[in-house]
Amino acid sequence: MDAKTSDRVKVKRHPERGYYDRQTIDPILDEALVCHVSFIKGGEPRVLPTIHVRIDDAIYLHGAPAADMLAAIGRADPIAVCVTLVDGLVLARSVYSHSLNYRSVVVYGHGEEVAERDEKMEVLRRLVEHVAPGRSQEARMPNEAEIRSTRVVRVRIEEASAKVRSGPPKDDDADLDLPVWAGVLPFVPSWGPPVPDDLLLPGVPLSPSLSPEGPFAGARP
Amino acid sequence: MDAKTSDRVKVKRHPERGYYDRQTIDPILDEALVCHVSFIKGGEPRVLPTIHVRIDDAIYLHGAPAADMLAAIGRADPIAVCVTLVDGLVLARSVYSHSLNYRSVVVYGHGEEVAERDEKMEVLRRLVEHVAPGRSQEARMPNEAEIRSTRVVRVRIEEASAKVRSGPPKDDDADLDLPVWAGVLPFVPSWGPPVPDDLLLPGVPLSPSLSPEGPFAGARP
Repeated sequence: MDAKTSDRVKVKRHPERGYYDRQTIDPILDEALVCHVSFIKGGEPRVLPTIHVRIDDAIYLHGAPAADMLAAIGRADPIAVCVTLVDGLVLARSVYSHSLNYRSVVVYGHGEEVAERDEKMEVLRRLVEHVAPGRSQEARMPNEAEIRSTRVVRVRIEEASAKVRSGPPKDDDADLDLPVWAGVLPFVPSWGPPVPDDLLLPGVPLSPSLSPEGPFAGARP
Repeated sequence: MDAKTSDRVKVKRHPERGYYDRQTIDPILDEALVCHVSFIKGGEPRVLPTIHVRIDDAIYLHGAPAADMLAAIGRADPIAVCVTLVDGLVLARSVYSHSLNYRSVVVYGHGEEVAERDEKMEVLRRLVEHVAPGRSQEARMPNEAEIRSTRVVRVRIEEASAKVRSGPPKDDDADLDLPVWAGVLPFVPSWGPPVPDDLLLPGVPLSPSLSPEGPFAGARP
């Protein structure tokens, strides 16, 4: 299902960079580890970072029951969520044509509480698998007290758009003869070697999820 | 000068992670290449990513004159700006104690237009230097038409806070005997080898700013 595309999500600047299909939108939401959630409190805008997981047509968030952001989502306020993946710096012959290569998504929707115990548990499992794939098989899963003390909410994807820039710089023709190096500096995200906790029990091996062939290779902030 | 710290910016969940001094806040704003800007339009929250530069007590943004976001800032609406740097995944023995190591900043303030030609030019130069240090010496600087067709605004840093988590996992004592690998997986941002534009004039060397010893080493999305 494609998201609705009212004026709110229309990419106006560089419309050729706008995408409205879920085949473009969902992989960007799924690759990003962190999203930025915007809501209104006291008539003023707020924005906070948090981890998320997309399941079907909603973005799920979790946190402390008292958090302002989760309260706003739980009472069905309008919510905006943005994820941004930077892919590179675009270095042009003119400063004006400098840019970033990036993939961003903005989602608009209303929130609702996820209160039912088994659904909360499944969302928490999927959140862990999104951020640390494989880890829900390796670490101790939440007990009943931990589930009760975690609030889970979802924002339905009512409208969404992606904005994507890729490829080389696009200098004006008049600038192409300038003797200035131009091209792209790719951003290369990666995970470094795991750093064991000082309190790790002797003899506990690295988890399979963290082996060099493990699922972390693809995930990124 | 430290920013004001009303309830709006107080870090409530994990208050030990909250910082309110500009010595902590400014380097995070300065290291991040992308910020997320939240504003209100038609009674609903909006959030968009953009590049920024902090100069003294304000965050400067730029873009197309017609952009909704810049219009909101230009007419002094209340604005929220957030930057987030992910430093690593915190892998605990229990799923509940999993976390991220990160440094984030939220800034609240009101906007204003930067209309004066020389000030706009200086902000544009600083924006370039923030994202692509050295590049304002190498590429063609904006001409008068380009300056006129770029809107520059600032958001004064009226209130701000940082939230920082670092270090190993903090499992409950009862979980420390679980034979589960625990520790931190550091996130390692880096820039890959420069990819020259196909249209590059023959014989144009790589810019000094892009040499392995150049200033890019420290910058990151």
